[in-house]
Amino acid sequence: MARIALDAMGGDLAPAAPIAGALLALQEFGSTHTIQLIGREAVIREQLERLLATEYAEFRDVSRALDIVHADDVIEMTDKPSVAIRGKPNSSMAVGLRLQPEGKSDAFVSAGNTGAQMAASAFILKVHDGVKRPAISTLLPTARQSVVVLDSGANVDCSPEELVIFARLGAIYAEDVLGRPNPSVSLLSIGEEPEKGNAAVKETHQLLAASGLNFHGNIEGRDVPAGISDRGVFDVVVCDGFVGNVVLKLYEGMAPMVVGLLAKGGVSKEQLSRGLQHLDYASVGGAPLLGVKGVSIICHGKSSAVAIKNAVQVAARTVESRMSDHIGQRLSQHQTSVAQS
Amino acid sequence: MARIALDAMGGDLAPAAPIAGALLALQEFGSTHTIQLIGREAVIREQLERLLATEYAEFRDVSRALDIVHADDVIEMTDKPSVAIRGKPNSSMAVGLRLQPEGKSDAFVSAGNTGAQMAASAFILKVHDGVKRPAISTLLPTARQSVVVLDSGANVDCSPEELVIFARLGAIYAEDVLGRPNPSVSLLSIGEEPEKGNAAVKETHQLLAASGLNFHGNIEGRDVPAGISDRGVFDVVVCDGFVGNVVLKLYEGMAPMVVGLLAKGGVSKEQLSRGLQHLDYASVGGAPLLGVKGVSIICHGKSSAVAIKNAVQVAARTVESRMSDHIGQRLSQHQTSVAQS
Repeated sequence: MARIALDAMGGDLAPAAPIAGALLALQEFGSTHTIQLIGREAVIREQLERLLATEYAEFRDVSRALDIVHADDVIEMTDKPSVAIRGKPNSSMAVGLRLQPEGKSDAFVSAGNTGAQMAASAFILKVHDGVKRPAISTLLPTARQSVVVLDSGANVDCSPEELVIFARLGAIYAEDVLGRPNPSVSLLSIGEEPEKGNAAVKETHQLLAASGLNFHGNIEGRDVPAGISDRGVFDVVVCDGFVGNVVLKLYEGMAPMVVGLLAKGGVSKEQLSRGLQHLDYASVGGAPLLGVKGVSIICHGKSSAVAIKNAVQVAARTVESRMSDHIGQRLSQHQTSVAQS
Repeated sequence: MARIALDAMGGDLAPAAPIAGALLALQEFGSTHTIQLIGREAVIREQLERLLATEYAEFRDVSRALDIVHADDVIEMTDKPSVAIRGKPNSSMAVGLRLQPEGKSDAFVSAGNTGAQMAASAFILKVHDGVKRPAISTLLPTARQSVVVLDSGANVDCSPEELVIFARLGAIYAEDVLGRPNPSVSLLSIGEEPEKGNAAVKETHQLLAASGLNFHGNIEGRDVPAGISDRGVFDVVVCDGFVGNVVLKLYEGMAPMVVGLLAKGGVSKEQLSRGLQHLDYASVGGAPLLGVKGVSIICHGKSSAVAIKNAVQVAARTVESRMSDHIGQRLSQHQTSVAQS
């Protein structure tokens, strides 16, 4: 029975979307997970009543299983990450995360300020030995299976050693949470040959080839949406947070651009939205912050109730697979083997 | 009367596409440009006869104005850049480029090996003072006007000073060849605030703000396909060649991915290709290599005859606007003002 703390105040559509998402999650997974809604209790109760009085009327019974944990403060989208640690120690984010070291919860889910969530998660949950800063992984839809891209914005100017840590973190996530045995880890570069890339990427290629990971080799930008390179499919894409962030935002911006062009060309909105459902991040829900001791799931700021419900499922899978423990074990095994060699 | 040397042997569809492109260009611009087809004379004559005997039958008169300049060797797509300089001094690329310092031609156009073209152009044409290596600029279609992205793969691991040179080169290209007065130059980063980005990008932001260029500020990945950020439209996107190459290849890979999804969703191929015409690189043709003393136009390896014809037009505009001279003047003005300050 995973206990999942959900930030009721985080995200562009909060508090309505997280609260509605909690109801959807309780109905779908209520027999196996409990949900702790974190935030201003009066606001949550008022919003909950409004939802139960209107479109969520049939969720009244389900809603009785909802735990509410009061938190005075709210992290705004414009707050600096440090605010989450020092400025607002009683924010829904800080209160929700602290339940884990207190033994009262197994996971935290938020669609709020990503930088703040990362900082608060590292501060409150702590990071595993060998991790400098946690990595943000993003699950990206492709023409084939979805792929894990990391780091997607938390860490810029990365050393080759840090990129190798991302590769290890991404591989464990793909295996534990996505159920991909022996995941294939690729390195984003500007040519498939090992000698292509910038200095950090070229060195990372050599380190990954000797890492014991199932290394796919380099991929190029065009292989990401295809989900396949000349050497086959891959599960994980490793890059620094600058490149990863540019890739993800470009990805996000391309679909509306193409849709706009096609709509002008006479393709109906209905055909477009049906065809591109596959690219909707709501179906993914959220992705775990990798490297922390515990579970912190990062959702898109625009997350709908359905996206939140799916993120709760990701949280549960992350807890049940014991991903965080596996990361700690594998990183310490790796450090031991490095020390012995 | 611009004299344009066209590599008959370069590109995936050579020699047919460049030769057919030369015929199209002669017909459309024959009164103002001459075309010099560079390559193995026997191969060119044979291919030309084949085209004139079939789908290009009505071009026989036009074809008489075509100059053919023999070159023994061909640079293969897999050849290393150095081959273009030392290994095959009589390649169509080297022969075509040498016509410029010999005073026999004004521009060179090729759809061949880009790395080789860049190396041979820098070696034969030389670079302007202040330029370390020439930059590859790519004209990218967006939901609004097209934008110049540079560097798009020639220079990885760039210093802030090099990124500022790219900004200057891109601005002159946008003004001279695209006809955009006082072009707006943006910096690709991971947030619009000056303090967002990696170390090189953050420093570049400060240098660009003081550069005298019309600096748009930072843009994010999602602004590229939109062609607009919160601060309005922009003409030039500055980034290092690693990021630029990832962006361009991702861009190239997204359209087929989206088309594939929509085709599965029942949108007809005809609707898709009509709607996405705007994204076709053939309409752009080619982009000048920036920073060389002369004109070298880089075309996509898959260039069709129409793409080559459009690239010839880009070459003519680059010659007529005296872009290379302007680059030399502006860079030397800038160096003088730096020396005096």
